Amino acid sequence: MNSYLTQGLKRAAQINRNGTASICEARRRTWSEVRERVARLAGGLRQLGLSAGGRVAIMSLNGDRYLELHFAVLWAGGTLLPINMRLAPPEIAYILADGEPELICADDAGLALLANLAPPTQPRVHLSDASAPEGWHSYERMIEATPAADDAERCGHDLAGIFYTGGSTGKAKGVMLSHDNLMANAMNAILLVGFDRTSVYLHAPPMFHLNDGMSTYAVTMVGGTHVFIPRFEPGACLAAIQQYRVTNVALAPTMVTMLINHPGVETFDFSAMRQIHFGSSPMPEATLKRAIELWPNLLLNHGWGMTETSPIGTMLPWELRLPAVAGERLRSCGHSAPNCEVMVVDEAGKEVARGAVGELIIRGPNVMVGYWKKPEETAAALRNGWLYTGDAAVMDEDGFVYIVDRLKDMIISGGENVYSTEVESAISLFPGVAEVAVIGIPDERWGEAVHAIIVPRPGAELDVEKIRHHCRGLIAGYKVPRSIEIRASPLPLSGSGKVLKTVLREPFWRGRRL
Amino acid sequence: MNSYLTQGLKRAAQINRNGTASICEARRRTWSEVRERVARLAGGLRQLGLSAGGRVAIMSLNGDRYLELHFAVLWAGGTLLPINMRLAPPEIAYILADGEPELICADDAGLALLANLAPPTQPRVHLSDASAPEGWHSYERMIEATPAADDAERCGHDLAGIFYTGGSTGKAKGVMLSHDNLMANAMNAILLVGFDRTSVYLHAPPMFHLNDGMSTYAVTMVGGTHVFIPRFEPGACLAAIQQYRVTNVALAPTMVTMLINHPGVETFDFSAMRQIHFGSSPMPEATLKRAIELWPNLLLNHGWGMTETSPIGTMLPWELRLPAVAGERLRSCGHSAPNCEVMVVDEAGKEVARGAVGELIIRGPNVMVGYWKKPEETAAALRNGWLYTGDAAVMDEDGFVYIVDRLKDMIISGGENVYSTEVESAISLFPGVAEVAVIGIPDERWGEAVHAIIVPRPGAELDVEKIRHHCRGLIAGYKVPRSIEIRASPLPLSGSGKVLKTVLREPFWRGRRL
Repeated sequence: MNSYLTQGLKRAAQINRNGTASICEARRRTWSEVRERVARLAGGLRQLGLSAGGRVAIMSLNGDRYLELHFAVLWAGGTLLPINMRLAPPEIAYILADGEPELICADDAGLALLANLAPPTQPRVHLSDASAPEGWHSYERMIEATPAADDAERCGHDLAGIFYTGGSTGKAKGVMLSHDNLMANAMNAILLVGFDRTSVYLHAPPMFHLNDGMSTYAVTMVGGTHVFIPRFEPGACLAAIQQYRVTNVALAPTMVTMLINHPGVETFDFSAMRQIHFGSSPMPEATLKRAIELWPNLLLNHGWGMTETSPIGTMLPWELRLPAVAGERLRSCGHSAPNCEVMVVDEAGKEVARGAVGELIIRGPNVMVGYWKKPEETAAALRNGWLYTGDAAVMDEDGFVYIVDRLKDMIISGGENVYSTEVESAISLFPGVAEVAVIGIPDERWGEAVHAIIVPRPGAELDVEKIRHHCRGLIAGYKVPRSIEIRASPLPLSGSGKVLKTVLREPFWRGRRL
Repeated sequence: MNSYLTQGLKRAAQINRNGTASICEARRRTWSEVRERVARLAGGLRQLGLSAGGRVAIMSLNGDRYLELHFAVLWAGGTLLPINMRLAPPEIAYILADGEPELICADDAGLALLANLAPPTQPRVHLSDASAPEGWHSYERMIEATPAADDAERCGHDLAGIFYTGGSTGKAKGVMLSHDNLMANAMNAILLVGFDRTSVYLHAPPMFHLNDGMSTYAVTMVGGTHVFIPRFEPGACLAAIQQYRVTNVALAPTMVTMLINHPGVETFDFSAMRQIHFGSSPMPEATLKRAIELWPNLLLNHGWGMTETSPIGTMLPWELRLPAVAGERLRSCGHSAPNCEVMVVDEAGKEVARGAVGELIIRGPNVMVGYWKKPEETAAALRNGWLYTGDAAVMDEDGFVYIVDRLKDMIISGGENVYSTEVESAISLFPGVAEVAVIGIPDERWGEAVHAIIVPRPGAELDVEKIRHHCRGLIAGYKVPRSIEIRASPLPLSGSGKVLKTVLREPFWRGRRL
């Protein structure tokens, strides 16, 4: 039989039935409780009219009910439709129209977002202990009142979820992931992260995003423990790590930067922590240095992935996760996951020599089925089974992959390629820099000019000329920013914690290409 | 894209191109060499007429060419048909007629077996450095003379191999395993055995059997090293472990018994060895005790599986592989592999209470497609996606599986169930016992009577009455053998090292049911 994701929940209840499945503030549940609740909730979702493959929109901050829904929707035979809680109302309206959910599940934060939209016509489920508002079904009441349903056991190529990406630009695409896709990822996650029954995983980044979701099925399959904080906030994250003796967390590099800059960070007990997984973008040098000072024995596991790859694509081998051992290799995002292939190719799709920059492409059972209702975009992204990622990368002699930039973030100035990430790393080493983003802006003479936007640490005074001088000592002259802007407000971030360069570029390129 | 097995070879060549892929006596090859040889050999197999999905029979002792064929046949688009080298000529003739190979690949040992049969009409490839006999193509010459072929990239549900089982009874069934099946197993093997680039795996049991084959794709995917001895022989096995600093080997319990009884076993250097995997049947108590004395820090990894499950079904969790920690749990074969489900059921297929004996059933992406050309046997074994294994088992409160016996090896004496393995374990503890098998024989009064067949250690004198007395101290009276037979010759073994109880029972049951 083909893989199916609810199998992992049954396994957890078989091998660790009295073990702690979830810790959500004061509420703890065992794996046998979660299994029972999921089977009942699935019955309730079916009673509300959920059809085979029907989408269930989830608008919620992190919590144990989000975990249960991950399984209950599938147990009922439905498809997950998690919604990015940071989107603006028109963006959410677009996804709800495009994704056509049959049901909507929302917590109070989701309710608040929906209040800005035309009232939904679908049946709605309220994720809360409190009594449900009018027109909403109570999640807890459904579980109490419904007998356990049989597992629909959809599997293999059947869709498990639609995950929208790029929503912040208004052109959201729904990434269709099958049971096979997410199961392939779960096996990779268990294997590459090393989850087992003793793992305590903190859901700190938003659960609607696969940076966190990468571990949801894996931690369940091995019967580990899920811990939740409603949203990423450095103090809450540090407190949860200490209080629940968290062993693993996945963070965007920007979140790690926020953690290490948090006042009193060195007073928190990190002794249970085994590994921080980071991806999406390389860790700034300054953050890396400080993290190593703070937690010299903590494994830092650099990986690369995207929603379209469910998401793990590459990860550092185990022996290179201790920064003192890894050295320069920590800047690599490692080798392909065992069951998939990566290649760096030129514009004709031909593999480039090792050491040369090209586009990273990837193929395997973790690669998406396609974009929902977007056959042209699907055909452009998936060619002969390979996903063209839009990431510029280098592969070394030993198969290690280094992401140099998003292709579209690469700056071409006077015919030279400038990788914004390299310039950002150089600037991040300058004392007093908290955040930095480098973009290309229009330039009459050079086509594009390198422009840096910097947010100083509280109280720091930054001298633009000194920063340029600092850069000249680290990178080639043509890479040094021609202009630097100091901002007091934080840089705009996507749901996954990436700096939104499209937003930063927009005022410079208005009326031209973006 | 779906999983395909040659991907693992490409990954090894990408991440460890100059690493040692294979050590076969004096011959060592790197992963980039093996990849190149496989692509050329695949071209040669196609030139000989191999069609998409066509079977390639392999009749060979263990060696590096067997490994290369594992990938070359698939690279060419064919299906593996490994032949058990211990079978009698009529059994081999049956498999060759039933499996209908398009090509036959054989080493000198294979040639000798074929000499007893009607000459094959298919194109034949001779695995040797020497020049090929008349009518045979030289394996090495094909590699020299053929350009590298493109990978056929058959995948997913496409058949990768047909593995015959039960051949020793004359009723061989061809187990059809797909690329998905064997890839699901490879991921389980990497994860559960812990293979990585530093693994050195010894192919000691026959490569035609999946007890060894369980690791072939996994060790390759991670870019580890394969070491070969032509056939299992305890002295050669110990010497190879010492000489090549072997880290992992899979052995049947009977083979472990032969190792620990080998003269001078304690003089061999086992310092590189990490784990011995054993399965097929529980380890006799006496063997276990002696193994722990010899190698106190060696992990013993008890698993359960069968050809029909590609083969891993269950394995002990990591923390229970050190015998001193595991205690009684080392008799368990552990939890289900992460991506599959196991259940213990009654005759109606309903799950029994934890602690009760029933039939073990299993479901997952590693479960075979079916038996080749045998729709009725397939329908009997596979019901609603579940494989009915014929193994009697117990599951405890924590999901640990204990195999108590093959259902057909269970003895029913006076209405009581007697598990032959329990009686064998008791007898194995008696000083001077080298091998033991317990079977049921016809009995007028009790239906079946418990009968033991014992092979003493060289020079040991065994007293039958003392053995019965020893047993009475360990097991219930109705389980104590009513008759005991002492034999000088070794017990008959299957290709995978299991005692052939059908052969032992045959003289007692001739003319009755077997």
